Amino acid sequence: MKKRIAAVTSSYRLLNQKNHASNRILHHHRRFNANFNQVIRSSSTSEARFSSQGVTHHCGPVPLKHFLASCRWDLQKSSLIHMQNMPIIQQRNFGSVASTIVQRNPLFSTINHDDIIYFEKILGVKNVIQDDEELQPANTDWMHKYKGSSKLMLQPENTDELSQILKYCNSRCLAVVPQGGNTGLVGGSVPVFDEVIINTRRMNRIISFDKVSGVLVCDAGCILENLISFLDKQGFIMPLDLGAKGSCQIGGNVSTNAGGLRLVRYGSLHGTVLDFLRIMLAVDAFSSLEVVLANGNVIDMLGTLRKDNTGYDLKHLFIGSEGSLGIITKVSILTPAKLSAVNIAFLACQDYISCQKLLFQAKRRLGEILSAFEFLDAQAMNLVLQHLDGVRNPLPSAIYNFYVLIETTGSNESSDKEKLEAFLLHAMENGLVSDGALAQDMNQASSFWHIREGVPEALMKAGAVYKYDLSLPVEKMYDLVEEIRIRLGAAANVVGYGHLGDGNLHLNVSTPQYDDTILAQIEPFVYEWTSRHHGSISAEHGLGLMKAEKIYYSKSSGTVQLMASIKKLLDPSGILNPYKVIPPSLLS
Amino acid sequence: MKKRIAAVTSSYRLLNQKNHASNRILHHHRRFNANFNQVIRSSSTSEARFSSQGVTHHCGPVPLKHFLASCRWDLQKSSLIHMQNMPIIQQRNFGSVASTIVQRNPLFSTINHDDIIYFEKILGVKNVIQDDEELQPANTDWMHKYKGSSKLMLQPENTDELSQILKYCNSRCLAVVPQGGNTGLVGGSVPVFDEVIINTRRMNRIISFDKVSGVLVCDAGCILENLISFLDKQGFIMPLDLGAKGSCQIGGNVSTNAGGLRLVRYGSLHGTVLDFLRIMLAVDAFSSLEVVLANGNVIDMLGTLRKDNTGYDLKHLFIGSEGSLGIITKVSILTPAKLSAVNIAFLACQDYISCQKLLFQAKRRLGEILSAFEFLDAQAMNLVLQHLDGVRNPLPSAIYNFYVLIETTGSNESSDKEKLEAFLLHAMENGLVSDGALAQDMNQASSFWHIREGVPEALMKAGAVYKYDLSLPVEKMYDLVEEIRIRLGAAANVVGYGHLGDGNLHLNVSTPQYDDTILAQIEPFVYEWTSRHHGSISAEHGLGLMKAEKIYYSKSSGTVQLMASIKKLLDPSGILNPYKVIPPSLLS
Repeated sequence: MKKRIAAVTSSYRLLNQKNHASNRILHHHRRFNANFNQVIRSSSTSEARFSSQGVTHHCGPVPLKHFLASCRWDLQKSSLIHMQNMPIIQQRNFGSVASTIVQRNPLFSTINHDDIIYFEKILGVKNVIQDDEELQPANTDWMHKYKGSSKLMLQPENTDELSQILKYCNSRCLAVVPQGGNTGLVGGSVPVFDEVIINTRRMNRIISFDKVSGVLVCDAGCILENLISFLDKQGFIMPLDLGAKGSCQIGGNVSTNAGGLRLVRYGSLHGTVLDFLRIMLAVDAFSSLEVVLANGNVIDMLGTLRKDNTGYDLKHLFIGSEGSLGIITKVSILTPAKLSAVNIAFLACQDYISCQKLLFQAKRRLGEILSAFEFLDAQAMNLVLQHLDGVRNPLPSAIYNFYVLIETTGSNESSDKEKLEAFLLHAMENGLVSDGALAQDMNQASSFWHIREGVPEALMKAGAVYKYDLSLPVEKMYDLVEEIRIRLGAAANVVGYGHLGDGNLHLNVSTPQYDDTILAQIEPFVYEWTSRHHGSISAEHGLGLMKAEKIYYSKSSGTVQLMASIKKLLDPSGILNPYKVIPPSLLS
Repeated sequence: MKKRIAAVTSSYRLLNQKNHASNRILHHHRRFNANFNQVIRSSSTSEARFSSQGVTHHCGPVPLKHFLASCRWDLQKSSLIHMQNMPIIQQRNFGSVASTIVQRNPLFSTINHDDIIYFEKILGVKNVIQDDEELQPANTDWMHKYKGSSKLMLQPENTDELSQILKYCNSRCLAVVPQGGNTGLVGGSVPVFDEVIINTRRMNRIISFDKVSGVLVCDAGCILENLISFLDKQGFIMPLDLGAKGSCQIGGNVSTNAGGLRLVRYGSLHGTVLDFLRIMLAVDAFSSLEVVLANGNVIDMLGTLRKDNTGYDLKHLFIGSEGSLGIITKVSILTPAKLSAVNIAFLACQDYISCQKLLFQAKRRLGEILSAFEFLDAQAMNLVLQHLDGVRNPLPSAIYNFYVLIETTGSNESSDKEKLEAFLLHAMENGLVSDGALAQDMNQASSFWHIREGVPEALMKAGAVYKYDLSLPVEKMYDLVEEIRIRLGAAANVVGYGHLGDGNLHLNVSTPQYDDTILAQIEPFVYEWTSRHHGSISAEHGLGLMKAEKIYYSKSSGTVQLMASIKKLLDPSGILNPYKVIPPSLLS
């Protein structure tokens, strides 16, 4: 058996250093277009399969027409998740909407002529934007779910300008909303009423990069994709990657703890990185910050190195505070060197307990090279196969209840492959895995990732979808899916997938059309269940306006009170991103 | 050349899963005794050396009598760093003493009979300690540098008892000092005057351990070594290890950010773990805490999982705040699975720039398995060879300016070894390394570590020593050593060693006897230099009483002001660990 796997995988050479960047790109719909040619150039394919029955299949290479069809499919579908076309998604996403009607805080002033004169003096006329048409996209979130009515957007170029603006706004009691790429999912980056929008797009300098330490220092307004490109050229990796990378800004990423600055997926939205890599991509990677407080005071936390044990570690207060405690102006990031070898396996498990055991073994046997451990259930797989063109099941010989995608990332191709093969052999011999396929090239790797990444899109095509992004203990995670399935019966298709190692469950309920009675059966049940199992109702997205009042499902009353005290201490007039994160009633 | 290295190292099998625990023990003087038999059992030795001149030497195995002598040496020397004998060290350590005379805060009450009655009611008579003899060790720090005059030590068993105590003390304005193992280095864990000592030693339960997620939840009073042993039996690693492990408590470790909960050495005081491993051992590993505030309120941050994006991440406020914002009562820790393969190389470099380049290459080529990158200069090496018995130079054929110890830790012995060999070959071919030795067994590994770990002890034997634990940019780190060397001329032996990858420099000035004029030439120059290069004056040890007033060398005035505001918010009466961390003048 061991020999067989070794034989069929001996030619396995998925990614080498040279094309690593372009390969990783394959996992990103948004990047696909720009790198299409690179993809075509490396499309020679073959696939090795192995099974627990000891039968080894050699499948022929994927025909080129399939390959091209797949590429076209990606190019078309990419528009579906593109921000400009988001109303399509919006119309189909239900559940978890802002449940409380917020009143404008009457203590906030409104903009007057003198304010404009003052801001123009600091920023120049062209960076004081009052034009309705220009303001419209800044007043609207990218899902078109939230809409403010701000009459003013300010675009400072540096910390000093931003500091002057905030000092003035604080003295005038003018509420502000900090805005980066405006790609948030919870209504945190748009005004609720007439808050002054402070956009950081002009603060976009890369200040320094040290190749020895890997430390990058840059302005908060740098677009994530630009930082990724810059680092790629230097042979380093940005420890964060998101679907919104083309628009989102690093300051916004940090202030929203976006997509898990702490527990980030390595390379894209697709994979959550486990243990070593996962924590490598930790909040701690953001070694230091510069922040402007509500009163305009600049808090320079960039001055010291990472290894520093002098006083309280204040940067963490600002990471994930969604701009409600201060506006981040500079970020220092520890970036890891690029690694050359990536291997991907797509596996089938008969039950959820096998998935858990497989995760346990993967952590132990793959250790430092394990870079992703994703799962999807049969319902998710079926949706992808039904609704997405050009996707085929890599393990078609039987129906399995669960599928797992494992990715390794390391510095040595042959030794990493050896480790993965030994692990897979052990897993099959112990009955944890029923069938599996190892990607033989980057095209296959991409096709495996497409299955996992295609689930949200397949759900969109299937009808209405109620989406929940929850963090739960791994052993309890799938119980919730099954309970919801029982609650809803034949009325809905309940789908579970996500980042198993993180305990991050994407629970989705799919129905032909939207139905209030379905929602009432899901909520607040799903939040209460999550809370009862000590989970988080927002694993990745933050609270923003949408979930400010739901904070108690995940945080104790004492903790929320303490948060409110800190908010009042740092921002006594409450001008920074009001109505969000903390329940407004606690701040009045 | 490549073949040669491969040949001489082909039998290299340093550590396997079975004896991993006992091998790691070799690096710890404190553990040596208990595991002596295990060490003896695996004492077969041989050593492979390689050199840039292309000559490969086979040295014979270390004779058993040398091996045993080395063990005895360790057993004897271990007492030198044992806490009970610390006055020896104290008498020889100079510099960086508390420079400000602190006055007792007259607003604090003094203990009366009613207080005692109250505490006895909560804790029982035997946990309300008033006996002078019993109080004496709790009033004195382990270096015998600081001495308080507390008349009362309370020993709560759980959070509820501790909460009741604090609530009472706060209402009575009785100052308290939280105390764990009392192993701090900056006078943070002993009373300054008559503060009530709250010792957490009775809060020592392991609450839960989840083998799937690797999450351990335990009381703050658990002794670190007990946690290490517990996890070892489960096949996991505690992401923290310290020389003081036999006494220090996890609550104290977290609240002091001890020895780098963020940037920890993997396995002992000896090695600072780089990139992947280093950040794996990050503060983020402490996924959640339970804390009691000054007013007795319990802040339960244990309730949610690691992937949680709901509100401010408050735990970081308490990590490293040295008990001045709240007392940590429970800790949840993410522990990695034990890895089986450890390899160690001892290398020589001609100049500091080669050390830096070697580090850069090591990060790139060893990537995920690089677990330590330590350096010492020729002066440090000479001291070790002169003053420590039984230590021999693994690279005796020439005098080199710098020595580097590299350790890899991974899951696959043969592939890790292959990676390390390829890296070393490349480094030698490119002239970064002039000579080197690869440990062939755990005894050699231990002897390599002894050189690096022996530096502080050799310094102690050489006479008076002025010690500085600084964090600096890697490229500037050694400039400071050279500048101090020039400043002091022939009057002193200036020694540099430490954790290169971290930029953590242990700068030590050795003189025959203590001399005020030498100190005046070092301080405040060394702090000013560190501050000018944006370094930290306390990379690992915290501020405590000793450096509270020196905080401005590493933190901006605005940042310190913000810290003081937060201290006043969370502890308005200032009862928690007064006079420490924040300059007292800011709190009055």
